[in-house]
This record gives sequence, structure tokens and C-alpha cells, in this order.
Amino acid sequence: MSSDIEIARAAKMQPIADIGEQLGIPEDALIPFGRTKAKIGSDFLRSLADRPDGKLVLVTAISPTPAGEGKTTTTVGLGDGLNRIGKKTAVCLREPSLGPCFGMKGGAAGGGKAQVVPMEDINLHFTGDFHAITSAHNLLSALIDNHIYWGNALEIDTRRVTWRRVMDMNDRALRTIVSSLGGVSNGFPREAGFDITVASEIMAILCLSTSLEDLQDRLGNIIVAYRRDKSAITARELEADGAMTVLLKEAIQPNLVQTLENNPAFVHGGPFANIAHGCNSVMATRSALKLADYVVTEAGFGADLGAEKFFDIKCRKAGLSPKAVVIVATVRALKMNGGVAKEDLGSENVDAVTKGCANLGRHIENVKQFGVPAVVAINHFTADTDAEVAAIKAYCANHGTDAVLATHWADGGAGTETLAHKVVELAESDTAQFAPLYNDELPLFEKIEQIAKRIYRADEVLADKSVRDQLRRWEADGFGHLPVCMAKTQYSFSTDPALRGAPTGHSVPVREVRLSAGAGFVVAICGEIMTMPGLPSVPSANHIGLDDNGQIEGLF
Amino acid sequence: MSSDIEIARAAKMQPIADIGEQLGIPEDALIPFGRTKAKIGSDFLRSLADRPDGKLVLVTAISPTPAGEGKTTTTVGLGDGLNRIGKKTAVCLREPSLGPCFGMKGGAAGGGKAQVVPMEDINLHFTGDFHAITSAHNLLSALIDNHIYWGNALEIDTRRVTWRRVMDMNDRALRTIVSSLGGVSNGFPREAGFDITVASEIMAILCLSTSLEDLQDRLGNIIVAYRRDKSAITARELEADGAMTVLLKEAIQPNLVQTLENNPAFVHGGPFANIAHGCNSVMATRSALKLADYVVTEAGFGADLGAEKFFDIKCRKAGLSPKAVVIVATVRALKMNGGVAKEDLGSENVDAVTKGCANLGRHIENVKQFGVPAVVAINHFTADTDAEVAAIKAYCANHGTDAVLATHWADGGAGTETLAHKVVELAESDTAQFAPLYNDELPLFEKIEQIAKRIYRADEVLADKSVRDQLRRWEADGFGHLPVCMAKTQYSFSTDPALRGAPTGHSVPVREVRLSAGAGFVVAICGEIMTMPGLPSVPSANHIGLDDNGQIEGLF
Repeated sequence: MSSDIEIARAAKMQPIADIGEQLGIPEDALIPFGRTKAKIGSDFLRSLADRPDGKLVLVTAISPTPAGEGKTTTTVGLGDGLNRIGKKTAVCLREPSLGPCFGMKGGAAGGGKAQVVPMEDINLHFTGDFHAITSAHNLLSALIDNHIYWGNALEIDTRRVTWRRVMDMNDRALRTIVSSLGGVSNGFPREAGFDITVASEIMAILCLSTSLEDLQDRLGNIIVAYRRDKSAITARELEADGAMTVLLKEAIQPNLVQTLENNPAFVHGGPFANIAHGCNSVMATRSALKLADYVVTEAGFGADLGAEKFFDIKCRKAGLSPKAVVIVATVRALKMNGGVAKEDLGSENVDAVTKGCANLGRHIENVKQFGVPAVVAINHFTADTDAEVAAIKAYCANHGTDAVLATHWADGGAGTETLAHKVVELAESDTAQFAPLYNDELPLFEKIEQIAKRIYRADEVLADKSVRDQLRRWEADGFGHLPVCMAKTQYSFSTDPALRGAPTGHSVPVREVRLSAGAGFVVAICGEIMTMPGLPSVPSANHIGLDDNGQIEGLF
Repeated sequence: MSSDIEIARAAKMQPIADIGEQLGIPEDALIPFGRTKAKIGSDFLRSLADRPDGKLVLVTAISPTPAGEGKTTTTVGLGDGLNRIGKKTAVCLREPSLGPCFGMKGGAAGGGKAQVVPMEDINLHFTGDFHAITSAHNLLSALIDNHIYWGNALEIDTRRVTWRRVMDMNDRALRTIVSSLGGVSNGFPREAGFDITVASEIMAILCLSTSLEDLQDRLGNIIVAYRRDKSAITARELEADGAMTVLLKEAIQPNLVQTLENNPAFVHGGPFANIAHGCNSVMATRSALKLADYVVTEAGFGADLGAEKFFDIKCRKAGLSPKAVVIVATVRALKMNGGVAKEDLGSENVDAVTKGCANLGRHIENVKQFGVPAVVAINHFTADTDAEVAAIKAYCANHGTDAVLATHWADGGAGTETLAHKVVELAESDTAQFAPLYNDELPLFEKIEQIAKRIYRADEVLADKSVRDQLRRWEADGFGHLPVCMAKTQYSFSTDPALRGAPTGHSVPVREVRLSAGAGFVVAICGEIMTMPGLPSVPSANHIGLDDNGQIEGLF
């Protein structure tokens, strides 16, 4: 088969107005960016408020392994499959980040015959959303130091500025810096640093906002620093929220592109899945639900992190009610969860598959705890044997869940028709009774415990007094109603990335807690979290360029 | 009269395809960004190569004062005037920078009835060109530190990294930093810093490149650092040029918008006018010349800096041959050059106007040294008296040059018809015999002397041995053929900003020289040059926001 990029380039894209028309979007409601990308205008989206919602389907996965699972590919393939069986369907995906493209090879717009296009644009500047977020974020940063420079009327403690700067680039040199060096006219030297743009709280805010007004309100709520007495200072007190909103007024509008099979795809927003919730924007999902009968969306990492946050943060806050969940598994990844090393994945090993199914089984149980029916999609790789696939199906049948083979990578939407029928059956059975895992009223530490014990199956949550005190202080300050956002390794249910499968009896140590008051969640950090990646010794940037035909080479 | 922003919002914009059609650009050669902005596709532009060029007209000005001159406004007004008298005309302007909008109030897209629209978009993210430049610049920065991190095979001296980072923001805290703090995994701590994006050498490169291939070649030539033995290390040696070109492949395509009178305007590129050449892109100017009979463009600062660099850098390198020059003067600015304080500008003062005309006179003489005929445009302010205007006209007549009153701010193109007729007369007289001030072969220091003595009318150029040695070293390294780019105050012919009028007998001290090997010039720095602005004590960001109708307020 051709490479992803060859398939993407061979795609016969339709004008974006035709894609919009499939969803009943009038041409004048589309703001074109070239011929195959558009933003959907806010006025039109507001006019849809009274329409009924389509059915929301979440695609999540088993615990990730280096073998790959294919959540995005399955989301796109299922969208195409649903359209093939006559359901008007849109997919909702996250926007990829530009910076990492120059480190490791590889984009993030699906693969094989299940991709969204124009793939290169989507992976590079796209419609400028991430650049707008970078600008808004760094404007706030500049306003903080400028406030200190001109007299510091708000009494910001320069040791307690929590708002860093961002850049959409893998640049380890910027992780920790000392700024304002060079003399009086450059301000007061202090320790500072940069994160990658997708780790910005503004990314999470943009993705959770339900309107431009809500966006501005959340931006104003951002806590940027603390005083010596530890009282918080917000972006609103710096009078930064208005200007930041102006910088984001286009970025909040969802982007419309298409799949290889010319079906509509919303690609909008892409927050980190560890310190943030890892889902595409509420604006995109809600808009898609007003315009399509089915909306297929994905969540970051495995279901223990991605699906839990999708349910407990995004659905809770946006009032979404998913009708079905697809859990993606691959023979290869289950083998790794069953203890096989990456270099041995080529040989059939039914026992290892069955052993690894313990990981899948726990994700199935977890998803069901949220009241949403699930189906397992076996994302087919050419080397998978019939016996291995049969082992997964048998395991799932024993756990009361169907498992369906999906060949979208090789066959596009034709490879997911069976899966699509199964999803429709689940969604139209109307058995979903979605409820978040815990109530808003539960104390913050108990929320962490609920997730750790019921989803990760840990025995206990460990936290220093300082962490518990901090959570209590936030409760006293009126933030106790917020959901928690867990930042832990995606490779294990536990906080030990090497512990594959379905571990029990472990502890979850909470090292640090952070308040994302604008996004509206408390982050519980369990282990090392990297918010500014570095480049490898031979970055892909070294081999990226334009060939003689002006085509990009080396990027994918 | 209404405010600039009210006038801009009341504009009846035409679809950008209709504007393109005026220039014979087929719709499929336009890459739309919304309905009223577009980029012009490279393939179409290449197809124009064999067409004859239209006539190029430069708008420059007397030495700037706080009273304002109105170069951009006059450029736009003259373009509209030329179109009114039946000449197919396009204007070529620089793109404004986003960052400064949040410091001082005010955009950069003309004013009154002589503006380009959509004004707010042009002043904010526009078509993303500056964001692309920021990304390409910072990718190179990240690759430098990454190279050092992974073993530093090129033996970069970390004390001699000349390539800084950039951000399109006024942020004094980033002027000087120490980066790579925090331990082994963050690299080797070193002194570093940020400039504002418009000061990036990549901005100058983008604006001087004649094609994508030329762009990549220039990017590769950038000198990023030196070794301990002072030998230079280029972006090409870091294998960064290909990936940077990929990031800039859309940004190099000129942007098309329109004037308030629905005439075509190219707004593309905006390099600093001190450490760079301060003109819009060669791609835009060349494209416009292929598509229009007349092209009106502007240069930065006063004619001593802006016009000189336009001629000696842009025209020399791009093979452009301007046919006429318009020198903009205002009664108010001439009064200030004649010694009147800003608060006294309201009263008639014919003597001061006449005295200030010495500044204008010298700019006229200077422009004529390049072999291009000039006309003076008196950009009319409502408080100007007839006697003051008459004084300017009389002075110019005595110097063999016409001066024409232009009322485009109040009247749009109707206010520049006389000026337009005069410009056509000059351009069609075919008297222009453009030649740069000095030859490529002249030694670098003598090039500086030529400019200092013949344009600034200084007696001498002062420079330490280290500066002269550096210039000689660059000559030995093969950079002696480059033009020089003077970085000095725009407020005076001398290097003393307080010395208005037409000073003589001064010295020009060259404090430092820098090599922009990618852009292709040697920068001679004479005085303090700020490449990263700060925000004022009450930044305009504090008052920027969306009003109840979703309109931006506080930005202009």
C-alpha cells in the first residue's frame, strides 16, 4: 500500500463549500482558508441552538503501547463507515501541534485510507488557531512583567508567578530561564520558563468554552500569580481578558475539513491529555451535534485517562450525553500488554493476546461505570492472525461486549461498516444513561480517590500534607466544585509506566496539584510531566524540505 | 469627520475575487482567507515573468517628527487618485506588527479616507505571515541549542550564538535571558534573548527573496553562531533551511486586500527600518508591477533612511527601476523641523515652516542623487493655513521641484488627483535614470562613508579599529559586495535625534556592525537600537475588548 502522505496527496478533495453543504451549512457561513479548509461562522452556529442534537459516539482505547492503537484512524474510519451506511456523520478531532513535527517524523491526521485532509496544512499552520493561542498566552505573560515593571500595584510576588510563556516548538532550552536580565530598563530578574503551546491553559479554555462570552470569562479567571500572603491574582485584575479574547475571536470558531472519502470533519483545538483534558473543542462537538445525526469523536491516551476526562470534564461541563463508546484495541498492543517485547510482535502468540486482554477488559468495565454502552474495535494490522483476533472476540464475549474487526486503514469506510452497524445498534437502543463518576460536591481529594480507586483500581492515594492543605485552601476559596484532571503516565493504570496489563494493589502518589481556574479543573500530578518537549539527536527538521515539485518531503 | 475605525467599518468592501479581477488575476489563482483577503498563488505569479513592468513610484518623507507625516496614508491616497484618473494602479504596503497594537493605541493601515481594509484583520493575525516567520525563526533557534545539547559537532561557541529568538509581542522581560537552566536535561546554560518578530532577519529575507528557491538559499546563508576561532556557522550547516522554507511557503505569497475605494492593495512583509531595509516584499512589488500600470509603494522613516535603503538595497538587489518619487511633508512637521514645540503647532507660523523646509530641501536633493525625479506632496491637515502651504510651494519652486497639496485624508482619491497627474507627468517623461548611490565593489567602510557624507552630509565616519577589522574580515570572507544597511535615528540626518532641520558638520559614529548574510547586507549601527519594545505603564491591551456587537474596541 502507498504511504500515508501518498494517499493523502492522491485524495480528490471537494471544495469545502460542498462539504459544508452536506451538513446544511450555507456557503456564506463558511470563512474559507484556501479551498479545502474553512471556519464556521459564530453567527450561524448561534442560530442552531434550538435544533435537536445528533448522537455522540466516543472513540477511546486500551492503554497505549509503542505498538500503536489507532484511535484517530478508527475515529475517521468509523465516521466514513457511518456515512456509508446512510447516517449523516461528522467526525470531531483534535488539531495537531506544529512543533513536534520537527522532532519525530509523523503527523496526526489519521493514517492509511482513514485520514483527514489537507493533511500537510492540518499539521502545519492550518487556520492559525495555535498561533492565536500562543499570542494570547504571551500577551498575558508580557502584561504580568509589565505590571511589575511599572510599580507592581497588585503586589505580585515575583517568586510566585505561575503563568509561564509558550511556544509551539520543541525547545528544551526554554524550559527554565531567568528573564529580565540586562539592567533596570528590562525589569526585575526572575525565574521563568516556556511550555509548548498545547500545554497552555488557554488551549484548555478554548476547548471548554461554549461561547465568546464564556471564553472571556474563563480567560479572566486565570490565576497568573500569588501575593506574598498567597492570595491569587487573576488575568482579569491585570485587565488582560478583553485583549486576549480579541486575539482568539477567530480561533474559537470550529474548523471544517474533510476525510479522504469527502465526509465532514471538525478539527479544532488540541489540549494536552495529561495536565489538561485532551479533547477537541466543545464548540466543535456541539456544532457537529446540531448539524449531523452522528458525531464520532476521540479522547487522548487510553480510556483510564482520556475517556474519564471526556466524561468527567468535557461532558459534565458541556452537558453532553454520549450514546456509545468504541474501545480500540490491536492485536499487537494486547500482546505487549500480555508481556511480549516490541521486537517479538511479528509472531503469532494467542496466549499473550489473551493475557493482554485483561487490560482491555478493565477499560470495558470502566467505560460501563459511566453508563454508556461499549463495543470493541479491533483495528486490524496485516500481520494479525485469525486465531489472535478470535481470542479477543472470545474474551470480549465473556465480558458481555461485542468485538468487531475493523479494516479502515486498508479499506477506508468499507472496512468499518460492521462496526458502524454495531455502533448504530448501541446508540439507537437508547440504553445509555450517562453520569459522571463523582458529584461536583465531593471534596477535591475524594474526587482523586474516586478516580484512583474505581478507574485505576489503586488501593490508596498518597499525598503530602502540603498537597492536602492546598486542596482544602482551594475549597475554601470556592474552587471545591471543580472536577479533577489527572496527570499520570498513559502506559499503565498505575503510576508506573512499566506496569502493563491490569495491575491492582498499587498506590497513586499525588506529587503536586495545580489550579486551572480558567479552564475549570484542578490538576493532580502523579509522576513526571513534561510540558516542553525536546528535539531528538537527529530531528526530522534536518530532512524536511520541498522537493522539485514544491511538495513537502520528510515531514511524514 | 468619523474616526479611522468608523470609516474602515463603514467601508463597502468588494469580494477579493473582484479586486483580483481588476488586475486580471483569475479566481483560481487566489487563495482566500475569508472573503476580503487572499494570497496570490506562486504558480500564477511565475506565469507573469515575461510581461512588461508597470511604473514604480516610491512614497517617502521628510525626517519624522511627533507631528506625523502620513506616508502610508499618502501612498494609499495616491493609489486611489491614480485609479481615479484612469491609471490601473496597485499600492504596495508593509504588514503591520501585532505586538505593538497592545502597547500604544493605533494601527498601521493608513487613516481617514485613505486606508486599506479589512483594517482590524490586517493589524491582527492577517494571513499568518508573521506567525510563520516567528515559527521558522524559533525552529532555527531550537535547532542550535539542540545541536549543542547532542554533542556540538559543529563546535558552536555558546558565547557567540548570534541568532536569538523572536516573539511578535512587546516584552522587555525577554530582551536578555539565561536559557537552558534547570539541569542536565535542559542543555547548557547560556546568555540569550528575544527580539520582536519584525526584527528577525527572516523578515528581511522573506522581503528580499525573489522565489521560494531564493528564499531557501538565503535561509541557508544565515550565520547563526561562530566557533572559538571566529569562523561562521550557517543555518545550512545545521540542516535547517529546508524545514524553515516549508514553514514559509505560504508566507512568501503576496497578500491582496483593497483600499476604501476598492482598489487593489498588496500588503506583504514588514521588516524593521533600522536594522533592516524597511520595505514591503520584493515578491509583492514585482507581482504588482506585472499586473498594474502603476505601483505606488512606501519606504520606512524619512528619505535619508527609507528611500536610501529602498534604492540601495531593495531596487539594487531586485533589479527595480523606480520612475518617480513622492516626498511627503506636512506643515506641522516642517514647523517642528523649524524649531516649534509640539504644543505650539496650532498657531500659524510661516517663518518656522520656511525654516523647516531646509529639511525637506535636503531630502529633495538626496532623492535626485539617485536619478529619480521627485514631487513634494503636502499632506493637508485642517489647521494648515494658506500662507503656510504657500511657503512650502515657494520653497520647492526655488529648488526646482513642484509641491502639490493633497487632501486624501479628508477626501480619499479625489484629494490626490492633482498629485496623481503630476506623478504621471514625471513617470511618463521618462527622465528617471535610476542608479544606486555606490557600487557593489566599493569596500564596506567606504560604502558607509558614501551614505554618511552624501546623504547625511556628515564630515566623517568614526569607528573603532575592531569595527574596521570586522568589516575587513567580512570582505576577506566574500561579503564585501553586500550593500550596507544603516541603523541610526530617524529623527535627524545626524545621529543626534534632537538635531532637526538640515545639520552639517557632524560625525557618524559606527558603534557596531552586524552581518545579515541571509538577507544580504551589512548593518552599521550608529546609536542605540531597540529590537524588542516594552509596553507602556497603561498598555492599550487594558482597554481592548469586544463590545456588545462583537466589534473590537480600544485597538485603534
